[in-house]
Amino acid sequence: MLGGYNDKILHVDLSKEETSVEEPDDDFYRRYLGGKSLALYYLLKDLEPDVDPLEPDNLLIFAPGIITGSPLPGTARFTTAAKSPLTGGFGGSEAGGFFGPELKLAGYDAVIIKGKAENPVYLWIHDGEVEIRDASKLWGKTGKETQEGIREELEDDRIRVALIGPAGEKLVRFACITNELKHANGRGGLGAVMGSKNLKAVAVRGTKQVELKDPDKVKSLTKWFAENYMEKGDTSGLHNLGTPILINVHDELGALPTRNFHEGSFEGAEKISGETIDETYNIGQKACFSCPVACKRVVKVDEPYEVDPAYGGSEYETLSSLGSNCGVDNLPAVLKAGEICNAYTMDTISTGMSIAFAMECFENDILTKEDTDGLELKFGNGEAMLKMVEKIAKREGLGDILAEGVKRAAQKIGNGAEKFALHVKGRELPMHEPRLKAGVGLGYAVAPIGADHTQMEHDPVFAEENPMLEELSPIGILEPVESQDTGPRKARLFKYLQHWWTLGDCVGLCIFSTSPARVWRIPHVAQMVNAVTGWDMTIWELMKAGERCDTMARAFNLREGFTREDDWIPDRFFEPLEGGPLKGDKLSKDEFKQAIARYYQMMGWDENGVPTKTKLAELDVEWVADELKK
Amino acid sequence: MLGGYNDKILHVDLSKEETSVEEPDDDFYRRYLGGKSLALYYLLKDLEPDVDPLEPDNLLIFAPGIITGSPLPGTARFTTAAKSPLTGGFGGSEAGGFFGPELKLAGYDAVIIKGKAENPVYLWIHDGEVEIRDASKLWGKTGKETQEGIREELEDDRIRVALIGPAGEKLVRFACITNELKHANGRGGLGAVMGSKNLKAVAVRGTKQVELKDPDKVKSLTKWFAENYMEKGDTSGLHNLGTPILINVHDELGALPTRNFHEGSFEGAEKISGETIDETYNIGQKACFSCPVACKRVVKVDEPYEVDPAYGGSEYETLSSLGSNCGVDNLPAVLKAGEICNAYTMDTISTGMSIAFAMECFENDILTKEDTDGLELKFGNGEAMLKMVEKIAKREGLGDILAEGVKRAAQKIGNGAEKFALHVKGRELPMHEPRLKAGVGLGYAVAPIGADHTQMEHDPVFAEENPMLEELSPIGILEPVESQDTGPRKARLFKYLQHWWTLGDCVGLCIFSTSPARVWRIPHVAQMVNAVTGWDMTIWELMKAGERCDTMARAFNLREGFTREDDWIPDRFFEPLEGGPLKGDKLSKDEFKQAIARYYQMMGWDENGVPTKTKLAELDVEWVADELKK
Repeated sequence: MLGGYNDKILHVDLSKEETSVEEPDDDFYRRYLGGKSLALYYLLKDLEPDVDPLEPDNLLIFAPGIITGSPLPGTARFTTAAKSPLTGGFGGSEAGGFFGPELKLAGYDAVIIKGKAENPVYLWIHDGEVEIRDASKLWGKTGKETQEGIREELEDDRIRVALIGPAGEKLVRFACITNELKHANGRGGLGAVMGSKNLKAVAVRGTKQVELKDPDKVKSLTKWFAENYMEKGDTSGLHNLGTPILINVHDELGALPTRNFHEGSFEGAEKISGETIDETYNIGQKACFSCPVACKRVVKVDEPYEVDPAYGGSEYETLSSLGSNCGVDNLPAVLKAGEICNAYTMDTISTGMSIAFAMECFENDILTKEDTDGLELKFGNGEAMLKMVEKIAKREGLGDILAEGVKRAAQKIGNGAEKFALHVKGRELPMHEPRLKAGVGLGYAVAPIGADHTQMEHDPVFAEENPMLEELSPIGILEPVESQDTGPRKARLFKYLQHWWTLGDCVGLCIFSTSPARVWRIPHVAQMVNAVTGWDMTIWELMKAGERCDTMARAFNLREGFTREDDWIPDRFFEPLEGGPLKGDKLSKDEFKQAIARYYQMMGWDENGVPTKTKLAELDVEWVADELKK
Repeated sequence: MLGGYNDKILHVDLSKEETSVEEPDDDFYRRYLGGKSLALYYLLKDLEPDVDPLEPDNLLIFAPGIITGSPLPGTARFTTAAKSPLTGGFGGSEAGGFFGPELKLAGYDAVIIKGKAENPVYLWIHDGEVEIRDASKLWGKTGKETQEGIREELEDDRIRVALIGPAGEKLVRFACITNELKHANGRGGLGAVMGSKNLKAVAVRGTKQVELKDPDKVKSLTKWFAENYMEKGDTSGLHNLGTPILINVHDELGALPTRNFHEGSFEGAEKISGETIDETYNIGQKACFSCPVACKRVVKVDEPYEVDPAYGGSEYETLSSLGSNCGVDNLPAVLKAGEICNAYTMDTISTGMSIAFAMECFENDILTKEDTDGLELKFGNGEAMLKMVEKIAKREGLGDILAEGVKRAAQKIGNGAEKFALHVKGRELPMHEPRLKAGVGLGYAVAPIGADHTQMEHDPVFAEENPMLEELSPIGILEPVESQDTGPRKARLFKYLQHWWTLGDCVGLCIFSTSPARVWRIPHVAQMVNAVTGWDMTIWELMKAGERCDTMARAFNLREGFTREDDWIPDRFFEPLEGGPLKGDKLSKDEFKQAIARYYQMMGWDENGVPTKTKLAELDVEWVADELKK
């Protein structure tokens, strides 16, 4: 069953230069699906606790979703996972693009890499064959140079390459991995893990098709999507402007992170907005494999900086983290910063947040021009921001410190810098304001990967609108819950949606293609999975698969020594917003503590956030209890 | 929307001779559906705690399932509910037949009756109209006389009548309610509640149709059922022999309750088996509204006792409780006993178990001929069994004591009789052997209504067979669980199936029409509900509706003073079976305690079996927490 589910998992040992293939049974796939859950299975089973994330023993896993590679729109995603060098806990990050589907078409449901190559190498996987190839000549190269180099060497322009640039090689703790130069497994420092293994790239090419158990159903679902995606207002927004549409939306709500989350509105928002990009530097749009939504932008800038359209365009997160959150309204500088992040493969969120952190230190005289090689590192200084991006990518000067992430940087800088370091579990906060979106704040606190915005659809701002509610009714959410509510009803909404979005990370589903508020509705997803696999899963079983995955991630962190103390958000969010329509709003510490306790209880975890043996049995993963004992 | 969901609920106050109509909104129906869950909503909201079940303040509720009355096969069921005079806790009991659908066609989703009529009355509900009519002339009459009397008085042979016979009038604590003389809301003494209200019958007639939001889908589902029900081995068994097929099946397994559960095989099993009935007294078969399975038997006996075919034929439970469990292999006597139970409206299970209890007392000289009016009340004496049935129905002599149920009877008789009284929460055990079916044993212990066999599909005997497993995969049960296993995997199977079967009691689904091991598969049920109602429920939401209902029932009992001490089964099951293939097998008390603790935890209840506030929030019924405080 080449390229289908229930197929082959490729194990690669770079130290031993060995590869092997495993063929799990159907029940394994049905229980763990693909993507995040499959990755967690191997991280729990095959990785010993307490391994340094940048040592060879760490695993690096590429795992497409269970239906990734099918023609169904919005299913192109794959998970990359390892123990995170940023958090020391579970590091999982999803990307779209073409790499995930291509890996399936090349015959593998996942690639699990351990060890470290003696010299730089890349993996070449094509129609079931695997080679570990020399990459000495590619080391030190940018993303574009690397991708071109590999395609030229192998003489095939259709090869899909997941790669790292110099930031990954230099073990920037928030280095990312890109495919097609612009789709990033962005967060948690997986690019550094790749770098630590001397692995420059994974190149894949497959000419088979994923087996579809019910091709007619796949066809009719695909047709339905194509006919309906433009009718959805929100999706149309994504189609027309991409995620940058959120700059103005958040600014108007008062929830656009501004100057390291001091304020919720930015006087320069319009200048860095999706609308402005559309009228200025945008030259086109791109899609992932088999997706008509095409939410990706392509920008080209000539002056004062050249921005190479090969690296796509900036997402909302990039525009906000390097823009508003640094107080920068200089659009070309922000776009250039985004391009550098992609070329050197660094997470734009952590990069922007690290710089915003440094700016706040600078404004408070904790850092001086002496520390910054003369840069006037103040909020709003676009030139300085841009220079710092390069310095981080190259680990030069202050950049070398910031490349460790805000948590470690603050410890090193001292003098009270810690209070400006906005992170959870060592991972920098994404661009969503918990003082408006309390559910997102809860997600920041408890997500096993640290502050996480890919569960942002907990987002109660949207939940209060009718279209969103209509989308959620299939899982029994019949009434809206207030944005700033942290009570029991928010806990329920949060739990259900967490399972749902986590499930997406196992199925391979892009959040921009599915409910809430997008095209695929919740019941479609069971139809999609079943049409491809031939199973008879219901949304019950699928939601439980999401819950299982969330719980396995929790277990991974507990095994690594995390405690409930790690489930918290920075003090800043218990202080009033200083500007914008929500000025004065803040979260309550007591209520937030209660919300976390409630979440534990709802998850079937004890008061310390440890899943009970009974809960593990209920999720059909009793074996995880043995891992928790370690 | 006459006859549809989201319609009208009829309230009747017999003391005040008043009726009123309530029209809840769509969300109410979606959250509580119909049947058991709807009944529990009103029992929790409208009934004060600590009311004597036989006093006027008790409520008596008739509630069809949410899709009952639609043409979909296997959806004819309705719940009757009250505070049980047998247990003092939640009393809910389901029946098929024609009454439930007819009530919907008459315009009501439920009838909620309180108070007590000054003189005997019956309710007459027809196309939205309601009358409280005099029933003085019917008082004291059997089921058949009552039904005929009402149909003659109202001059309509198609009126459907839910009624009580003399046993209900005399407040036999396990009196039942029948419709069409043979479909019983059998258990928990609801007939006594009806009697206590001076309510002889509820007669209904409706000429409308239930609104179907997607009539084409209903049609195609109905067609699918008709085309597939005979192909299923198990359903064919039901079609050909009805539930009596289980006599030989259980006997061969060693799990046929024999002589008050001392043994698991009965030397006279063949004589009282479904196969023997088929070859001797069976004269036909009957179906419920819109169901091709037609599992009901009709028997006619001329000698030595006349058995009136108007009362149908005996189910497995009847044949076992009055037959093997009393050691009686005299088939005509057993069939006659069943007929008397139907004519006088008594639950055959509790009747048989009460007599088996008395027989064991007699064999142990705790009861003597003096107590039995000269009857030689030994195991195997069919004549004596039959006389005792009459004595209970008429509350004569020892029958007056047994009419209180084995728990109260044992307390009255004393002298160690308690150890022969096999009940949970005061309700006599049904005919399923926990020493084989440990999951059923767990169900006996924890079911809010007391020892309950309608959750018998927890039955691991079936679960080990492949067809069953295939049916359960849509809720993620991918591997068999051993019958006698009481471990974590059994807890999971038990919990999921409990929600599932409880859901059936809210939807109106007959267990003989649906998964596991029947015709409708699990995913069909969401399709069925949605086709009728126009909603977009998934199996997730539906399973949660089942869990919600289970939890509301738990809350009702807790409010009435039940504790975890009440969740236990009789000592007999921790002692070895004395005969049959499973001779020597027994349950372990320690393991069983653990199983119950595990079940609580899996349900989100505390160590005392009290649902946490968080769990109630997760089930979207925070208001229940206030009821628990009372």
